[in-house]
Amino acid sequence: MEIVESPLAMQGIAREIHGRGKTIAVVPTMGFLHEGHLSLVDRARNEADVVVLTLFVNPIQFGPNEDYAVYPRDRERDAALCEARGVDYLFAPTVDGMYAPDASVKINETSLSTHLCGAVRPGHFSGVCTVVAKLFNITLADVAVFGQKDAQQVAIVRRMVRDLNFPVRIVMAPIVREADGLAMSSRNTRLAPESREVALGLSAALSAAIEAYGRGERDAAAVKAIMADAMSARGLKVDYASAVDYSTMEDVDEIGPGTLLAVAAYCGPVRLIDNRLL
Amino acid sequence: MEIVESPLAMQGIAREIHGRGKTIAVVPTMGFLHEGHLSLVDRARNEADVVVLTLFVNPIQFGPNEDYAVYPRDRERDAALCEARGVDYLFAPTVDGMYAPDASVKINETSLSTHLCGAVRPGHFSGVCTVVAKLFNITLADVAVFGQKDAQQVAIVRRMVRDLNFPVRIVMAPIVREADGLAMSSRNTRLAPESREVALGLSAALSAAIEAYGRGERDAAAVKAIMADAMSARGLKVDYASAVDYSTMEDVDEIGPGTLLAVAAYCGPVRLIDNRLL
Repeated sequence: MEIVESPLAMQGIAREIHGRGKTIAVVPTMGFLHEGHLSLVDRARNEADVVVLTLFVNPIQFGPNEDYAVYPRDRERDAALCEARGVDYLFAPTVDGMYAPDASVKINETSLSTHLCGAVRPGHFSGVCTVVAKLFNITLADVAVFGQKDAQQVAIVRRMVRDLNFPVRIVMAPIVREADGLAMSSRNTRLAPESREVALGLSAALSAAIEAYGRGERDAAAVKAIMADAMSARGLKVDYASAVDYSTMEDVDEIGPGTLLAVAAYCGPVRLIDNRLL
Repeated sequence: MEIVESPLAMQGIAREIHGRGKTIAVVPTMGFLHEGHLSLVDRARNEADVVVLTLFVNPIQFGPNEDYAVYPRDRERDAALCEARGVDYLFAPTVDGMYAPDASVKINETSLSTHLCGAVRPGHFSGVCTVVAKLFNITLADVAVFGQKDAQQVAIVRRMVRDLNFPVRIVMAPIVREADGLAMSSRNTRLAPESREVALGLSAALSAAIEAYGRGERDAAAVKAIMADAMSARGLKVDYASAVDYSTMEDVDEIGPGTLLAVAAYCGPVRLIDNRLL
């Protein structure tokens, strides 16, 4: 495995790979890798000849009061995990290498991103779109693999690919969960031991919603109340408990196939998200 | 020469060209081609193996009171000119082919585009950036050739390429002028015969400024007054007469190397621009 820090060097490597007729799959991450990320590497391996994992905690997708400074980082551990999992190139740029001091170009999505996390994190998805476009251009990705944990992000990236004609195929891979149901997240490492039970409220809320759906419940308001109550009951501070059409991210009145059940909540200072797609 | 209408088909052709180890130069145009555009084709021919000219009157870069509806169009004549000049692929998509009804992603440049044409045409450069990014992604351009007539556009596209890491090299080719000095523009065909003399006020204003610079004039205010007066004297309605630093597009106090002298004016209903780079 080769570790590459310079965007220009990475682009040169990618050109050379394409020149040999090989395809490139990229797995964009913010590092502090867990089995969720590594499952994306496996998927990427099946989708293309060469696997590039990008590791970059992107400052412009964090709001001023968010957790950029305390976001967990461990580049050496990440590099070892990538090497062991068969990543070919680890692209780990610096902030200065990615953003010129006078950078002045951003990509804005103005429909899907007005809902869910976008509604409570202004500027977040603009930062995501901008960095993902940069990573696509730097790695000359043919395929990009994202996790369903960030389902709204995947929908917005797909929209960006469609609307800007990026020559990249987007693959969404399933959420990987701990044995107890907690969706894997780098942010889980920030949970105090006694908060771990509380954090299970997110997956429990979604399970309760799915159970109600299985019993025949279709009323979105009822399902949202079930999710919000389940989270509050565990001691979570609910950010949202939503049922949206996954193609538009707009609230639905009745849930059914294509509905995304999505929750976000604070577990102490740590904001966690989870979802289930019907 | 092959005429291609579908973005997906064009992208497939471009992939196949790259697969053969050949490079692609793109010349983005809004059609109604003149010698200015065709000089860009010649330049593109020198820069890469395959030349793609794109022909698309991009609705989203026109304001509601601008000349989208009356912008001159003649696709058959354009195709004949391209064929004669040795263009390999003419990419001429439809508006529906380029923009989904629910398109929701745009690229915004927020520094260089606040000046000159950007200041008087809100949204224009966002529309330009968005369509140029699309055209880069559709044609898989290695090189893109733009004319200096739209010098601010070239600066903004270069900024976009830098900030989003597009794998595209930008070439700026000189302005081509009519024998009398008028900068070639598709919009010149909209000038009434009696307006032609008036339109010469733009190039005359720039010549007067260059002459003053040659005499030792360095004061930007004085030079701007010379340009504005020269245009008004010919009967033009001045939109701007500016002296800016070409790297930032900000007004300068003293003109010198790197200064862009830029003028915009209405000749009757037709808005024309011209510039000289010191």
